Amino acid sequence: MLHLHSTSPDRWLQQVDQHLHEILIDHAHCEQKAAAAAMDLMFDYVEYEDLARQMTEIVREELEHFHLVLDILKRRNIRFYKSKPGTYGRKLKELARRQEPHKAVDRLLIAGLIEARSCERFVLLRDHVNDEELTTFYGSLYESEARHHATYVRLAMHYAPEAEVRARLEELSAAEAAIITEGCPLPRMHS
Amino acid sequence: MLHLHSTSPDRWLQQVDQHLHEILIDHAHCEQKAAAAAMDLMFDYVEYEDLARQMTEIVREELEHFHLVLDILKRRNIRFYKSKPGTYGRKLKELARRQEPHKAVDRLLIAGLIEARSCERFVLLRDHVNDEELTTFYGSLYESEARHHATYVRLAMHYAPEAEVRARLEELSAAEAAIITEGCPLPRMHS
Ligand SMILES: [Fe+2]
Ligand SMILES: [Fe+2]
Ligand SMILES: [Fe+2]
Ligand SMILES: [Fe+2]
Repeated sequence: MLHLHSTSPDRWLQQVDQHLHEILIDHAHCEQKAAAAAMDLMFDYVEYEDLARQMTEIVREELEHFHLVLDILKRRNIRFYKSKPGTYGRKLKELARRQEPHKAVDRLLIAGLIEARSCERFVLLRDHVNDEELTTFYGSLYESEARHHATYVRLAMHYAPEAEVRARLEELSAAEAAIITEGCPLPRMHS
Repeated sequence: MLHLHSTSPDRWLQQVDQHLHEILIDHAHCEQKAAAAAMDLMFDYVEYEDLARQMTEIVREELEHFHLVLDILKRRNIRFYKSKPGTYGRKLKELARRQEPHKAVDRLLIAGLIEARSCERFVLLRDHVNDEELTTFYGSLYESEARHHATYVRLAMHYAPEAEVRARLEELSAAEAAIITEGCPLPRMHS
């Protein structure tokens, strides 16, 4: 359902155990970035009304998630600061084709894959962290990220036939799995 | 209350009369841009929690306004497309000082002045357009834009003493009035 070509390596859960605060701070950034990416798509493809409606909903939900993370940081006296981004998002975005309508397809599918990976990791975190508040929290997030994934994939079909979208999704998903395997030394939600 | 140094010239209302569709389309873009600007501020100043909360609220409200304009376009069978932006926003943004914390002050005040000008123009439009739906619509918007103006000015005071913020607001407001006097040949919400 999430179209991912790999499960997250144990290496990542070790990063989580050793740097939980940094992971939480990066999580807040991720929710902000998810909101901003949805807003950018809405700007760049104004003529597609269904996209505008779906992106508005996603912006709202990601901002809600963002504030839920901020509340957790606050309760734990963890100062929120602008941390250096990991390499995942940049590497993924470089895969997008430059020409329309391929660009639209790729941007939507890449946004969808980020949602899918977040979803997979929230489930892993839910089952891994030994912290009741966080277990509940991660457990509450994965459903909406799975829904966002499906929305992005569906919207991509406005710009190309379904079979083409499905084939491209498999290509991008294989590339995403390779990026995850490479990893990133910074402890991040997508390292 | 809005700290504007000028009222809009009649020239602008003539643009409105001659190009109402373009003005409506640009209005939709303006609401999107207002949402995106609030999101950008939230990203760039993550450590200031009150700002994050206020920006989230503004993003929500601007997206609501955006959809209200989209609905009006739809009812009138006006196709929404990406139109060329006017010069107002770019000229205003060039006024921002480059160094922090001055940059934060200026970005917030410039956002506040755009809200103030929108507010002033919604009142003008409400009283000018001979169209019941639009009169009601513009009448419903000016209050929230006035509130946004006040929010931005207040948040700027986190980055500089009140007297300094007030003095800078007067400077920027004088510059904003000059930009409005120059005008822009494209018929836009802020031309
Ligand atoms: Fe989210
Ligand atoms: Fe999401
Ligand atoms: Fe607005
Ligand atoms: Fe506003």
